[in-house]
Amino acid sequence: VLRDEPNDKLGDDAHALAAKLWPINRSLTGEGVRKTLEILKGILPELTVHAVPTGYKAFDWDVPQEWRVQEAYVETPDGKVICDWKTNNLHLVGYSTAVDANVTRAELETNLHSLPAQPTAIPYVTSYYAENWGFCLPDEHRSELVNGTYRVCIDAEHFDGELNYADLVIPGESSEEIVFSTYVCHPSMANNELSGPVVATALAGEISQMKHRKFSYRFIFVPETIGSLVYLSKNLQHLKHNTRAGFVLTCVGDENGFSYMPSRNGGTLADRCALKALRDNAPDFQTYSYRQRGSDERQYCSPGIDLPFCSVMKSKYGCFPEYHTSLDDLSFVTPKGLGDSIAMHLKIIAMLEKNGTPKSRTMGEPQLGKRGLYSNLSYKGSAVDHSLIMDILGYADGTRDLIQLAEFLDADFTRVAEIADLLVRHDLIEIS
Amino acid sequence: VLRDEPNDKLGDDAHALAAKLWPINRSLTGEGVRKTLEILKGILPELTVHAVPTGYKAFDWDVPQEWRVQEAYVETPDGKVICDWKTNNLHLVGYSTAVDANVTRAELETNLHSLPAQPTAIPYVTSYYAENWGFCLPDEHRSELVNGTYRVCIDAEHFDGELNYADLVIPGESSEEIVFSTYVCHPSMANNELSGPVVATALAGEISQMKHRKFSYRFIFVPETIGSLVYLSKNLQHLKHNTRAGFVLTCVGDENGFSYMPSRNGGTLADRCALKALRDNAPDFQTYSYRQRGSDERQYCSPGIDLPFCSVMKSKYGCFPEYHTSLDDLSFVTPKGLGDSIAMHLKIIAMLEKNGTPKSRTMGEPQLGKRGLYSNLSYKGSAVDHSLIMDILGYADGTRDLIQLAEFLDADFTRVAEIADLLVRHDLIEIS
Amino acid sequence: VLRDEPNDKLGDDAHALAAKLWPINRSLTGEGVRKTLEILKGILPELTVHAVPTGYKAFDWDVPQEWRVQEAYVETPDGKVICDWKTNNLHLVGYSTAVDANVTRAELETNLHSLPAQPTAIPYVTSYYAENWGFCLPDEHRSELVNGTYRVCIDAEHFDGELNYADLVIPGESSEEIVFSTYVCHPSMANNELSGPVVATALAGEISQMKHRKFSYRFIFVPETIGSLVYLSKNLQHLKHNTRAGFVLTCVGDENGFSYMPSRNGGTLADRCALKALRDNAPDFQTYSYRQRGSDERQYCSPGIDLPFCSVMKSKYGCFPEYHTSLDDLSFVTPKGLGDSIAMHLKIIAMLEKNGTPKSRTMGEPQLGKRGLYSNLSYKGSAVDHSLIMDILGYADGTRDLIQLAEFLDADFTRVAEIADLLVRHDLIEIS
Repeated sequence: VLRDEPNDKLGDDAHALAAKLWPINRSLTGEGVRKTLEILKGILPELTVHAVPTGYKAFDWDVPQEWRVQEAYVETPDGKVICDWKTNNLHLVGYSTAVDANVTRAELETNLHSLPAQPTAIPYVTSYYAENWGFCLPDEHRSELVNGTYRVCIDAEHFDGELNYADLVIPGESSEEIVFSTYVCHPSMANNELSGPVVATALAGEISQMKHRKFSYRFIFVPETIGSLVYLSKNLQHLKHNTRAGFVLTCVGDENGFSYMPSRNGGTLADRCALKALRDNAPDFQTYSYRQRGSDERQYCSPGIDLPFCSVMKSKYGCFPEYHTSLDDLSFVTPKGLGDSIAMHLKIIAMLEKNGTPKSRTMGEPQLGKRGLYSNLSYKGSAVDHSLIMDILGYADGTRDLIQLAEFLDADFTRVAEIADLLVRHDLIEIS
Repeated sequence: VLRDEPNDKLGDDAHALAAKLWPINRSLTGEGVRKTLEILKGILPELTVHAVPTGYKAFDWDVPQEWRVQEAYVETPDGKVICDWKTNNLHLVGYSTAVDANVTRAELETNLHSLPAQPTAIPYVTSYYAENWGFCLPDEHRSELVNGTYRVCIDAEHFDGELNYADLVIPGESSEEIVFSTYVCHPSMANNELSGPVVATALAGEISQMKHRKFSYRFIFVPETIGSLVYLSKNLQHLKHNTRAGFVLTCVGDENGFSYMPSRNGGTLADRCALKALRDNAPDFQTYSYRQRGSDERQYCSPGIDLPFCSVMKSKYGCFPEYHTSLDDLSFVTPKGLGDSIAMHLKIIAMLEKNGTPKSRTMGEPQLGKRGLYSNLSYKGSAVDHSLIMDILGYADGTRDLIQLAEFLDADFTRVAEIADLLVRHDLIEIS
Repeated sequence: VLRDEPNDKLGDDAHALAAKLWPINRSLTGEGVRKTLEILKGILPELTVHAVPTGYKAFDWDVPQEWRVQEAYVETPDGKVICDWKTNNLHLVGYSTAVDANVTRAELETNLHSLPAQPTAIPYVTSYYAENWGFCLPDEHRSELVNGTYRVCIDAEHFDGELNYADLVIPGESSEEIVFSTYVCHPSMANNELSGPVVATALAGEISQMKHRKFSYRFIFVPETIGSLVYLSKNLQHLKHNTRAGFVLTCVGDENGFSYMPSRNGGTLADRCALKALRDNAPDFQTYSYRQRGSDERQYCSPGIDLPFCSVMKSKYGCFPEYHTSLDDLSFVTPKGLGDSIAMHLKIIAMLEKNGTPKSRTMGEPQLGKRGLYSNLSYKGSAVDHSLIMDILGYADGTRDLIQLAEFLDADFTRVAEIADLLVRHDLIEIS
């Protein structure tokens, strides 16, 4: 039986895992991704780590070189070390080239990034596809820089290596799969993106403990964009054939309200489950358009790929002030925030497992009285609404699945599914 | 030619028939139903009365035993007879078991039913599917009961017998049928339900006098629920094959506004006719959802049965204060109320007979001038709107029937049908 | 390359042509139509003039006799000549029979037409299908008529002759045709109707200069109603087989806002182009219902004909006060008004030529950076919105043509088509 309520223990564990992953310097490729996947494999032993070499062609893209950093900092004219990568890996522009030089303050400034509107935040900047170097720092520190000669040191190298990713399949009764995808390429930020991998880990743990699984469950941990493209290039036919519903896990850790990003044209089973779970459990959620997309649904839902993926997030990427700064930290992402997302996705999983299309097994209304279903009826300790029983029977014509029926009857899915179970046990309906 | 206007004579006759049927103690089974059907057969000689035995299985239901009452009353401690079934058959809980006992006031109270909010009304209570006995009385009388010993007498018996119902088919040009179903199991109440049988009787009389009938017409008189299930169990294949439109006749006698109950998914020919007739002739009617169903559409529209039945009522069952009490009497149901319902259903019948899909027989606009149709055109004494003629011609493309066309043109169906007749006579359109 | 902006030269030429055609006494048949077509053929040498004889049967209609007028006037009791047809051909009721008589003022009045609400205007009156004669004059002159004997002279004759019309096909790569139809039967009025023929002439000139035409273009010049029916009777199978989009050109010369008249059921390619061009370029246009039709779409869109014709007008016929009076003159119709309509129809033509259904040629998002499309992108001198590029790629799934995509993305068609061109050149999409 799946849990129905937010689970503090799950949120606590997820937050602790995020704290463990926090300091690792992740990038599209390299040691950071490998260390991250190794830690996850410690929790999910069935996780398989894969690699493709630098230069591997994934559709229109090429896997870039690995990037290895030993140290990176700036020394001020008075000998103080600032922007030290070892204290916060956001200080270094991602994928920076090596530098060892003395520069004037003016020369330095052309390679600095800060946010005047958020003077305490270190911004997150990368330059994956153009050669460049730079440092990021709080604007309040940048404004204190004095004229003079600065020493700039970036001990980094780019070299042919590999791109790593991992997946895990938890088998069920059917080979049809529910897929969760998340990404492991962001350095020290919490909502975007440690929340995705830790929630994915929690869900995989829960699912593996389910006594019965109608579906198989696939978890994908990849670097964003290039990683999902590599994954699709390796697994497209399998995914197209087997995927019943997919979800991108991103930005699932803060305590703001839920957000929903549909698949390209909406209306897939994934979308319907996400919307019904949100309507039932967090009706004030925010709906976005696919035109506002920005995560790996850009690949999963692209023309030709056409997989049924949507996203259920807390604060959507790009829509919260902490986004892509050092303020997106482990105080912004909380055990409660993570726990809420875990619980919401467990609701979705339960819905997928329970869903089906009911069809009446009688002609005309059945006689509920002789089955003790007519009145004073209670089930699982709570009174069950007689009119809801009658409506589930009355509309069980094989044209609406339980999600559609619950939407149509403006009723909680859990309630509808419980009654449907009861009616199946009394042989009044069948569910296909 | 069908009547266009409410017909006082029809309403008067229907009300007189209701008065004749009023005192009979109807129940699901027994002498009351038989007497009622016998009286109806006196007016509609072609009516055929049928029977199935106690225990007959209709889908999920079993026909109950017959119930016969000789007398039933309560004697107060001071020797006064109250709740005398012979004065009003609502005093006795329907299908009560026999009792002959002295009881305390407290014991009596557990078997009494009254309505504190309607202190002058005797409520209508039955206990068909659980063994029980009881009396119903106005709350203002109940509150006057004194302590002491009461004599309770119910001289009743339950025994294997039969369930009776009747039908009538008035043949037309086609074997396709328009079906009206109503019920004959309620004791002395007028809107729910003597109005249905008497309006059905009036409609059957009118239809049998029509010179030309495109459709055949079937009238069904059954006890509610169990009776319609029995009827369906005997006639399902025929009904599924032949029914073009069906209507449950219930609550059609009061002077409040009209109500509409759709079929399960709406949109059938029956629904479209009902809605157009109501929009044209009683545009302030009330629309209900199938979720608010409560009469024999529960059987006719159930999954697997799937017949195209809807209802055009005056005050819907359950939605008027007199419902299921002694206040639902022959002053609440009036000749005018019955006449309005008869007239509305005759409008629907006329619509069904006249409907068809017009298709132009010319290419381009026809030249109306040479046919005297262009201007100063009048038909049946009233000027016919030239633009309506042009629009009926202009949209006569075989994709909309006259009902849809009248809806689309926001025009009265009768007007559209008259013009369509005129255009057929001039060989400008054909109707299929 | 088609012009994008209103072209003063085109509007000037069109207005000059209208001035040349102005004084000709056009009617359904006769010398006026022939002279008009001859002048048009002087500009469009490929124009072919056709004739059918009096009595020719076009579907439900017969071609009427020709009408020839030598002179027509009224002489007042004091010898003054009024209503002289030679000064304004609207003075004579169209298709009037011959008269040479002295009449009283009262007799004369029964044959006069004027507009009390527009006292300076001569109304346009015809009597094509009933034998009659009459004169039209400003109401302010009519009210000055004195009692006495009036001489009425109409030197006119009706005789078997022919009905004339013309067409022109400008061939393109495909035999599929875009059709423009306009009418040449109205005497001296400017918007309804010299604007249609002169705008058609301008469009034919522009189209014939296009270097590349995907479609063939057909221009039809006919008398209204009877002429389009004759044309359809001669060319129906060809038109039904080849027409991709059609437009009636009428009332396209004044300076009021644009109007749109849909095809019978709307939604054709013609309708979609017209609506998108109007939304992009004149978003405050007025939409009418097909029920308000009144020009040759009555024939082209009639059941059985079913051609995809709509109209993009300035002030719709019947909806401007100058309509069908001498006030509809060459000051009401202006070079700017005509130029706006020419430009709008050139937008529609460009849209038809550019339209197609884009489909992605990559799997997943393409890497725009390596193609220099990612940022700082400019095209034709203006910055192109990156998100519009991404959305055109992201929705290029073969289900929406460029018009639908531009509507969906709430973007200007021209912009979307430019970006689609760019993406085709980079082999990122294909358009079919």
